[in-house]
Amino acid sequence: VSLESELAEVVGAVHVVVDPTMTASYEVDWTRRFSGRCRAVVRPDSTEQVVGVLAACRRHGACVVVQGGNTGLVGGATPAGGEVLLSTTRLRELGPVDEIAGQVTVGAGVTLAAVQAHVRPHGFDVGVDLGSRDSATVGGMVATNAGGERVLRYGPMRAQTLGLEAVLSSGDVLAHMGGLPKENTGYDWVGLLTGSEGTLAVLTAVRLRLVPAPAGRAVALLGFDDTRSAMRALSDLRRAVPDLTAAEGFYAAGLAMVRAHTGLGDPLPGGHAVYLLVERTEPAAAVDPAEPLLAALADADVGAAVVVSEGAACRALWRYREAHAEAISADGIPVKLDVAVPVAVLADFVEGLAPTVQQVAPGARVIVFGHLAEGNLHVNVLDAGDNAVAVTDAVLRSVVARGGSISAEHGVGRAKVEWLGLSRTPAELAAMAAVKRALDPTWMLGPGVLLRPAGTPTRRHGGAKPPRGETLGP
Amino acid sequence: VSLESELAEVVGAVHVVVDPTMTASYEVDWTRRFSGRCRAVVRPDSTEQVVGVLAACRRHGACVVVQGGNTGLVGGATPAGGEVLLSTTRLRELGPVDEIAGQVTVGAGVTLAAVQAHVRPHGFDVGVDLGSRDSATVGGMVATNAGGERVLRYGPMRAQTLGLEAVLSSGDVLAHMGGLPKENTGYDWVGLLTGSEGTLAVLTAVRLRLVPAPAGRAVALLGFDDTRSAMRALSDLRRAVPDLTAAEGFYAAGLAMVRAHTGLGDPLPGGHAVYLLVERTEPAAAVDPAEPLLAALADADVGAAVVVSEGAACRALWRYREAHAEAISADGIPVKLDVAVPVAVLADFVEGLAPTVQQVAPGARVIVFGHLAEGNLHVNVLDAGDNAVAVTDAVLRSVVARGGSISAEHGVGRAKVEWLGLSRTPAELAAMAAVKRALDPTWMLGPGVLLRPAGTPTRRHGGAKPPRGETLGP
Repeated sequence: VSLESELAEVVGAVHVVVDPTMTASYEVDWTRRFSGRCRAVVRPDSTEQVVGVLAACRRHGACVVVQGGNTGLVGGATPAGGEVLLSTTRLRELGPVDEIAGQVTVGAGVTLAAVQAHVRPHGFDVGVDLGSRDSATVGGMVATNAGGERVLRYGPMRAQTLGLEAVLSSGDVLAHMGGLPKENTGYDWVGLLTGSEGTLAVLTAVRLRLVPAPAGRAVALLGFDDTRSAMRALSDLRRAVPDLTAAEGFYAAGLAMVRAHTGLGDPLPGGHAVYLLVERTEPAAAVDPAEPLLAALADADVGAAVVVSEGAACRALWRYREAHAEAISADGIPVKLDVAVPVAVLADFVEGLAPTVQQVAPGARVIVFGHLAEGNLHVNVLDAGDNAVAVTDAVLRSVVARGGSISAEHGVGRAKVEWLGLSRTPAELAAMAAVKRALDPTWMLGPGVLLRPAGTPTRRHGGAKPPRGETLGP
Repeated sequence: VSLESELAEVVGAVHVVVDPTMTASYEVDWTRRFSGRCRAVVRPDSTEQVVGVLAACRRHGACVVVQGGNTGLVGGATPAGGEVLLSTTRLRELGPVDEIAGQVTVGAGVTLAAVQAHVRPHGFDVGVDLGSRDSATVGGMVATNAGGERVLRYGPMRAQTLGLEAVLSSGDVLAHMGGLPKENTGYDWVGLLTGSEGTLAVLTAVRLRLVPAPAGRAVALLGFDDTRSAMRALSDLRRAVPDLTAAEGFYAAGLAMVRAHTGLGDPLPGGHAVYLLVERTEPAAAVDPAEPLLAALADADVGAAVVVSEGAACRALWRYREAHAEAISADGIPVKLDVAVPVAVLADFVEGLAPTVQQVAPGARVIVFGHLAEGNLHVNVLDAGDNAVAVTDAVLRSVVARGGSISAEHGVGRAKVEWLGLSRTPAELAAMAAVKRALDPTWMLGPGVLLRPAGTPTRRHGGAKPPRGETLGP
């Protein structure tokens, strides 16, 4: 019996897709940087079906790559070639909102927007929010420990995840969904599986912590002459307004691309080199959410500022920040690097970025934006030509030299697996491989994602130049 | 060469203790419920020495139990018999306070009180606080994912831990101390090792997230006729004052024992069945920290209330809650059970507790206190006589029947290892054992703690009665 027949037996023939015209949309990521052919797309609609799919793949020695909303940015959900692609999008359970505990259970394939729409009428919200909310699935967000725009206030996806259900490649189901805010009964699957990028288990459901929906929201957009001034103002603002929910930064070059792409007007009078967008939410309906921001800004050294608290006006300011990714993608296929550096050296790092890139890719354009409070920058390099690997190598080494991390919130995926040795020691890599073998002994899940099979070298501090011919995508 | 000589070679003869009169204080926990003889106490003062100690133990086939401040409550740091006891108390590094990032690096053997004293002059505090702060070490707190009094506001120890250094039984050092608030480069050692109770690695240093020291603090003590009214008032209070730092509960019987033990007076006029202590901290110096509590309590249905904001007065109210453990211990050796139940069923659970205990241990006294906002109760049973196992079994089954956990914040240790199957499925236990084997293949660290070696049965839902002759301690 063929694998495809066995899979059809489990999920129904209509949910095993092998026609290349039908599998194509699963086989390339939305940035078009990563692509690979899969053996079949299979769409289970229950945990039992996931168990059955993995059993069939195990019997046939097939590897499995798990895909949620296909909004990842490091190729972790794109096939390398020949895997079965397990799509979670039919795992669509939306459990009742537990208003006493402030929790909800959702299937791994539910989109963030669907959870938001489900919980908001009950006075709750999800602590993580992302521009890709209409497509990104909760399972994918947990698997990548997604961050986004409100990590400053609520932490990343790991902090929203109180329990999970996941299927190991053996078919064993790890179900720990009680949702107790305090529990210490041994190893923490949430701690281990969030951020494991589909390499240890297939997530099928998640118990989410909810946050109270705010009564009001205020957004300020501030203009500065340089990154150093913006970081100083942000530090002062954080002390004065300790409950900021977001602190986002972008630059004149990115703003120009966004305006060209969207047709939006100038958000602030006068041109500025650096823009800082901060948001604050207010729990009490009787309090003006903008008041603490206005008070803090009265004394601040800011070139220009606008503060709004009406919903549409807030969304309009956010649009300048959120449209960066699509404006850049509309211009070309960028080298996209999501990195973190200590906030104390962020301005230094940004100043050195263009020269670093120009050295290995003359004529390339660097567009930077990101989450300034956590030192998390999204470095986009357009027109890198054949120098994508050299640009990646140069930028990541510059990050690590400053005590930073090669991946802040997007994960390692296929994009950075060669560079993982810059952020992790050989002992750490060996321990990661040992954990991988413990839970997925045949290396069936996500081959080539995050970890190289034992023995394959990765780049180290001061290591050799990248091998020629290696590419980051198509 | 003997193991003792090799250990002396590594740490110096004076730090290898074998004289029983000198090892005695390490061999019994402070509740006097757990004790066991160790082969030697060894006190390394650096990560290199820890590596050397583990290498010597590995060569001699000796098992190792790790002990910090010896304030654990489940016997996880007490020898079972014959292990080398690795005391972390000389790992005393106190790194500089990073005021920009709000972080500090400390050795595993530093006490919580020492960290508090170190960071407070810089305007910071540690997010977790415990009554045992003068002895409890940071390493032990991370290893047990300690909770304590401010989980409501800042989360447990896992949420304070941004990085760690740990030595595997192989001698490999996992060092990941960058302290970046956002980082996704593979499996998260903090997520895996916090709460692993010394069974996967020896923690040597921790990178701690700090929280801003508040400008002011207010504490309210409220009296109620029953648990249900207290929980209703707490729910209302949490909505009205979303930044509560603590919500602790205790009962008339516990208060009477505390007053007898300490000589303290009555904290509230009139006798009450249930007491709720809530705390709020205020970031701004100009704002009265008590004001939001007073406003919220104006409309609340409370039998009696006192609200204070002066430092000594706050500490005096906290003393009624914090003295519970010592007052109970002064009265006898209790069966101590740290459990969590969903807050929606907490009042039900408490009402059923005395009958549940009386049924298996007639004449036993039940004293309950705990962290009400997380449904975390400390159940203390005095005068259980020979029925300690039966009491444990009855209470833990009652917890699990209500969707609760057999351990909220103390861990499993040796005390609850037989009951772990009540909170964890066979698939989870198998996966935990697989992870254990991956990182500690010879089962060298903490034998008998948390996990039974493969093949040993643990209790399941509706399983057999506990075997006769089994005890929880001396």
